[in-house]
Amino acid sequence: MPGNAFGQRFRVTSFGESHGGAVGVVVDGCPSGHRFPHDRIAAQLARRRPGQPLTSQRDEADAIEVLSGIDPESGCTLGTPIAMIVRNTDAKSGDYDAMRDVYRPSHADFTYDARFGLRFVAGGGRASARETVARVAAGALAEDLLERWHQIEIVAWVASVHDVLATIDPATVMRAHVDAHTVRCPDPSAAAAMTAVIEDARKHGDTVGGIVRAVVRGVPAGLGEPVFDKLTADLAHAMMSLPASRGFEIGEGFAATRMRGTAHNDAFVPAPERTPPVATRTNHSGGIQGGISNGETIHFAVAFKPVATVFVPQDTVTRDGQATVVRARGRHDPCVLPRAVPMVEAMAALVLADHVLRRFGARAEELDR
Amino acid sequence: MPGNAFGQRFRVTSFGESHGGAVGVVVDGCPSGHRFPHDRIAAQLARRRPGQPLTSQRDEADAIEVLSGIDPESGCTLGTPIAMIVRNTDAKSGDYDAMRDVYRPSHADFTYDARFGLRFVAGGGRASARETVARVAAGALAEDLLERWHQIEIVAWVASVHDVLATIDPATVMRAHVDAHTVRCPDPSAAAAMTAVIEDARKHGDTVGGIVRAVVRGVPAGLGEPVFDKLTADLAHAMMSLPASRGFEIGEGFAATRMRGTAHNDAFVPAPERTPPVATRTNHSGGIQGGISNGETIHFAVAFKPVATVFVPQDTVTRDGQATVVRARGRHDPCVLPRAVPMVEAMAALVLADHVLRRFGARAEELDR
Amino acid sequence: MPGNAFGQRFRVTSFGESHGGAVGVVVDGCPSGHRFPHDRIAAQLARRRPGQPLTSQRDEADAIEVLSGIDPESGCTLGTPIAMIVRNTDAKSGDYDAMRDVYRPSHADFTYDARFGLRFVAGGGRASARETVARVAAGALAEDLLERWHQIEIVAWVASVHDVLATIDPATVMRAHVDAHTVRCPDPSAAAAMTAVIEDARKHGDTVGGIVRAVVRGVPAGLGEPVFDKLTADLAHAMMSLPASRGFEIGEGFAATRMRGTAHNDAFVPAPERTPPVATRTNHSGGIQGGISNGETIHFAVAFKPVATVFVPQDTVTRDGQATVVRARGRHDPCVLPRAVPMVEAMAALVLADHVLRRFGARAEELDR
Amino acid sequence: MPGNAFGQRFRVTSFGESHGGAVGVVVDGCPSGHRFPHDRIAAQLARRRPGQPLTSQRDEADAIEVLSGIDPESGCTLGTPIAMIVRNTDAKSGDYDAMRDVYRPSHADFTYDARFGLRFVAGGGRASARETVARVAAGALAEDLLERWHQIEIVAWVASVHDVLATIDPATVMRAHVDAHTVRCPDPSAAAAMTAVIEDARKHGDTVGGIVRAVVRGVPAGLGEPVFDKLTADLAHAMMSLPASRGFEIGEGFAATRMRGTAHNDAFVPAPERTPPVATRTNHSGGIQGGISNGETIHFAVAFKPVATVFVPQDTVTRDGQATVVRARGRHDPCVLPRAVPMVEAMAALVLADHVLRRFGARAEELDR
Repeated sequence: MPGNAFGQRFRVTSFGESHGGAVGVVVDGCPSGHRFPHDRIAAQLARRRPGQPLTSQRDEADAIEVLSGIDPESGCTLGTPIAMIVRNTDAKSGDYDAMRDVYRPSHADFTYDARFGLRFVAGGGRASARETVARVAAGALAEDLLERWHQIEIVAWVASVHDVLATIDPATVMRAHVDAHTVRCPDPSAAAAMTAVIEDARKHGDTVGGIVRAVVRGVPAGLGEPVFDKLTADLAHAMMSLPASRGFEIGEGFAATRMRGTAHNDAFVPAPERTPPVATRTNHSGGIQGGISNGETIHFAVAFKPVATVFVPQDTVTRDGQATVVRARGRHDPCVLPRAVPMVEAMAALVLADHVLRRFGARAEELDR
Repeated sequence: MPGNAFGQRFRVTSFGESHGGAVGVVVDGCPSGHRFPHDRIAAQLARRRPGQPLTSQRDEADAIEVLSGIDPESGCTLGTPIAMIVRNTDAKSGDYDAMRDVYRPSHADFTYDARFGLRFVAGGGRASARETVARVAAGALAEDLLERWHQIEIVAWVASVHDVLATIDPATVMRAHVDAHTVRCPDPSAAAAMTAVIEDARKHGDTVGGIVRAVVRGVPAGLGEPVFDKLTADLAHAMMSLPASRGFEIGEGFAATRMRGTAHNDAFVPAPERTPPVATRTNHSGGIQGGISNGETIHFAVAFKPVATVFVPQDTVTRDGQATVVRARGRHDPCVLPRAVPMVEAMAALVLADHVLRRFGARAEELDR
Repeated sequence: MPGNAFGQRFRVTSFGESHGGAVGVVVDGCPSGHRFPHDRIAAQLARRRPGQPLTSQRDEADAIEVLSGIDPESGCTLGTPIAMIVRNTDAKSGDYDAMRDVYRPSHADFTYDARFGLRFVAGGGRASARETVARVAAGALAEDLLERWHQIEIVAWVASVHDVLATIDPATVMRAHVDAHTVRCPDPSAAAAMTAVIEDARKHGDTVGGIVRAVVRGVPAGLGEPVFDKLTADLAHAMMSLPASRGFEIGEGFAATRMRGTAHNDAFVPAPERTPPVATRTNHSGGIQGGISNGETIHFAVAFKPVATVFVPQDTVTRDGQATVVRARGRHDPCVLPRAVPMVEAMAALVLADHVLRRFGARAEELDR
Repeated sequence: MPGNAFGQRFRVTSFGESHGGAVGVVVDGCPSGHRFPHDRIAAQLARRRPGQPLTSQRDEADAIEVLSGIDPESGCTLGTPIAMIVRNTDAKSGDYDAMRDVYRPSHADFTYDARFGLRFVAGGGRASARETVARVAAGALAEDLLERWHQIEIVAWVASVHDVLATIDPATVMRAHVDAHTVRCPDPSAAAAMTAVIEDARKHGDTVGGIVRAVVRGVPAGLGEPVFDKLTADLAHAMMSLPASRGFEIGEGFAATRMRGTAHNDAFVPAPERTPPVATRTNHSGGIQGGISNGETIHFAVAFKPVATVFVPQDTVTRDGQATVVRARGRHDPCVLPRAVPMVEAMAALVLADHVLRRFGARAEELDR
């Protein structure tokens, strides 16, 4: 498989270059008879959109057009592929002319040339974060299915920007809290400090990274496949496919390496209200044991590097290997973190919807019939 | 696909329970005409084997039997599936009888029951680290191909155990250095401290975790697929499918979140000796940009939690949800890190061999004809 | 994988309902640097189009819009997914209102309801032959690659309609000959008889079927994978996925069952001009032995049933199982055979391009660099 | 995927050469909690075995060894991969020494060399019909699941050998009838004539082909995926992957091309006893419409060419392209048809089990809990 598709049963194929005709996605495997969630998709795309405070000034409405897969009479999914596209309308390709023969440091210009022999110069083409429109649209559809099937709820937030760490209660945080602050960190004082750090970086033509944390609540025990398709592995795959992601951890993650087994182990306790009637006293495992969900809240983190586009001169080389200096132009985020929140939610939704369907098949849709 | 296979072109299917008849692997897609590397496979299996100092006392020769895919006349691969098995000879199932109706905390007993409705009780069945025999055997074959094709070299080592951190020069470290210390940490003073930490944990019936770091040298620029099958994503998937892994990072990883873009970006510099003639001055990206290799050394880290089997009483529940106390028996590592080194190397080799074949096809084998 | 994608390395994902917004296809895995063949695609779509003599009167320009995957500067493929769509402009949904609650015999109305619980009523939705727009567009792109790589040439023709059999020399037949007759049978007298048979069927509100034969010339020896992905198996899969196809045979096909081995075997003869220097004296095998191409011309046949839409009253049932009578309305071919010719060529091209890429990898594109 | 695996949810990976260590199969995706059907597997392997009257004299017990995937306590499947192997015990490699540098006409010797650059000379290696041991073992397991889930029943029989055609009532034929005659044709007079034809061919050192027909009873409506993974397409793929198969047809097949639509269409009739309450008056469609099962009996046919190994001198070439003459040695069937019957049944079972699991997921196993 060539690399632009994800998932086995809820399978998304992403296409489109940042400054080409459109970006879009085909979702193959969406169960039939589900009311297509236009509003949820629009809402998540709005959260992903540039042109918000703190982010790139590119202003695009990002209105999706649905080309297939929906019954016009009932508004429900047909069980056939759902193709969604978003036209590229505000692309200022001129900003990129100077980049044609120059490799921007820590961008994908050089590696795409090494891989393909040519690249779509304007806007970074397929390596642009604009590709994530496809993921967020498909992910919002997946999220809607998860909510209907199991009341599964996904909440992500900005846990750190540069050296500013937030203090959040993962048990109670909701999207409304996250969106109460432009930086999408629900800790008010940390949010203010993050905003200051981002603005300071922008002022210096520089950029900053950070960490997104996420919880998935309501996952039934027994999702995930042993060995290679562990839920942990599929989540890691999903998150590390996001632009600028550099690290992933589940549960205690790297901190687990500094714990002893007696401290890290999650004791089981009776939980008569559950099926099966088992819970854990602590949740250091982050809801996944042996690659399979145990019914506790899944929690994980994704590290994002600072944006590669900085507005100071940088050493680099031309396509023919000559040393030169490049200085970025165009519109770019000084920090991807606020926009990464819906991307992380989308990828988590894609992984979970896929595993629900792998376990329950097309029957998944019929559970509430 | 049901979850026990990995890779698209160099595809391994793993099978076997810890205390069943055998564990094994089928490699489908290995190019033809390659001399089968019995010795390399045996060597890596020996490094993975329990019964070494510091690890579990289960003593198994782990001699592989090759059932198919090799030409008996030339000893070369036929291009057909290579099936390798290792018999389970030293399994003491009796140790596990008490575990039949009790869920060991932070093991996969409960989640396998939730997923499958039954489980192979003795030895943890398929969730046992013994399953990694399959990975290590297939990975050693992949490694041999990588060396032949591109002189690609993979070296992993124990970078930390609990709170003991090693200081290693990733540019020069070799497997011989790693194996010079039982704990597989090439920093002598750290190795001594790690050994002490592990022995102390064992003495208390407790366990410790740690971090494995790895480098992959000699990777040509242009490996990896954009978007979902980024090299980063596939490596993350591979590493997070290993038993007890809890985190993955590439390049600077989580530390990148505390760097500014101007500090993290890797300036390009002319490199006339390379094809294409481009190198980077620094390597914060860890050899992968936009999901595609850039010709620099790939480096990454994997976090492993402390082993779940501790020899102190733990609260838990029975299969029917009653509170009880469990105390482990059997033979278990107090720390998986030394044995995780060849596992990490194997998974890296599987990912890279797959991507070489995806890029160069069955022709990969013919490059040196 | 949910069923709307085909191929492993040249992977097409088809979407769209007959009377929805658009039909389209995403091609993932097309090598980079190939000039996008707009004209060839338009030409094959024109051959597939209804509104030609003998076929349905639905008149659609079927102009494709390319949304992604092409470098605007060079007109070359980028190596990223190529999304192509064709808008549905002439759909008269009103014709289908009466069909909402009635199952048309030997259509997919009932089985789609059984599978999905609902269906796109107008135009047959996804089960319409209009879906083959996606296949033909992608297939024309594949064909262009095959011609560039190996001068591979695919020619299909109508070999029979009902009881009229054509006499064709498969060694010399070309598309120009095929298109010289509206019915796409290059045997003039058979073509005339076929036309008469089709017109007679139309006059009676009835329909007829027939056989398409095809040759693939220039296939190098060594394409195809043993065992399950034999070239024969993949061609059969491809052809039997076409609407209305009911049978497939390779080489002598069913006639081989009435030959003795001594008559059917293809003797090998020296062929110094070939690489490897081997040919066969006869070609009863149809160019494929053991599932792998042997360098001879591949030839095969596909049986198409008579079109299900007949303009006479037929017994059927309603959605709630009541007996009723249905009489078709709308515009429909009395015979799909002429339009099936480019569909068969497209599917053959998809199979072969996939196998070339499986064998030669992304390097396939570089053979002529 | 490299070509030795089949199915998406009930996924079998076949391995092994005819004269290597073993042939075998890994079944990944078998639901848990199913009693492993040793007897059914042994019975189907016995029907496939050479050394029966009319077939090759190679005498192998073909006893399978199950290496993994079964709970030793309950004898039930664990939901983990089931590896089964059959050792090669009676391989007389010496018979093949003369074949090392000579290509046997219409065998896979030449194409394997063209594909892989080398081949397992003795016994045809992987191209031998012995590979079908893997299919038959896995297929018998699949068949057992199908019977449990839906009382699905598969019966295949020899419908023709050379020019001898049997007359069979597909509605009533059972395996016991089929096995009543060595040639596996349940029509006594045709069976006698077939036997005579085969013996006559053997006497002349020649071989004959024929047709296997099969029915699948009890398939619920709604199995199959639209477009590329139609049930017809997957069955065609499966059957055309069998050694020596040359054609496939469903329902009326090629005969449908000589019928008019009014004759071929299957009128729907009320069927209150069914869910949904719909049946067809005739079954020209062979139980599949639009690629999806309609609840009627599936019936199809597979054409097998005459065996390539004939005991008369044949023109051929050596590996270096020199003309020579080859005369077969070794033990070979003059007609594969009797042994092809269980192979066809096995492949049908694999396709259907896969589609049941694709539709119903891991829940399939729980239907009768």
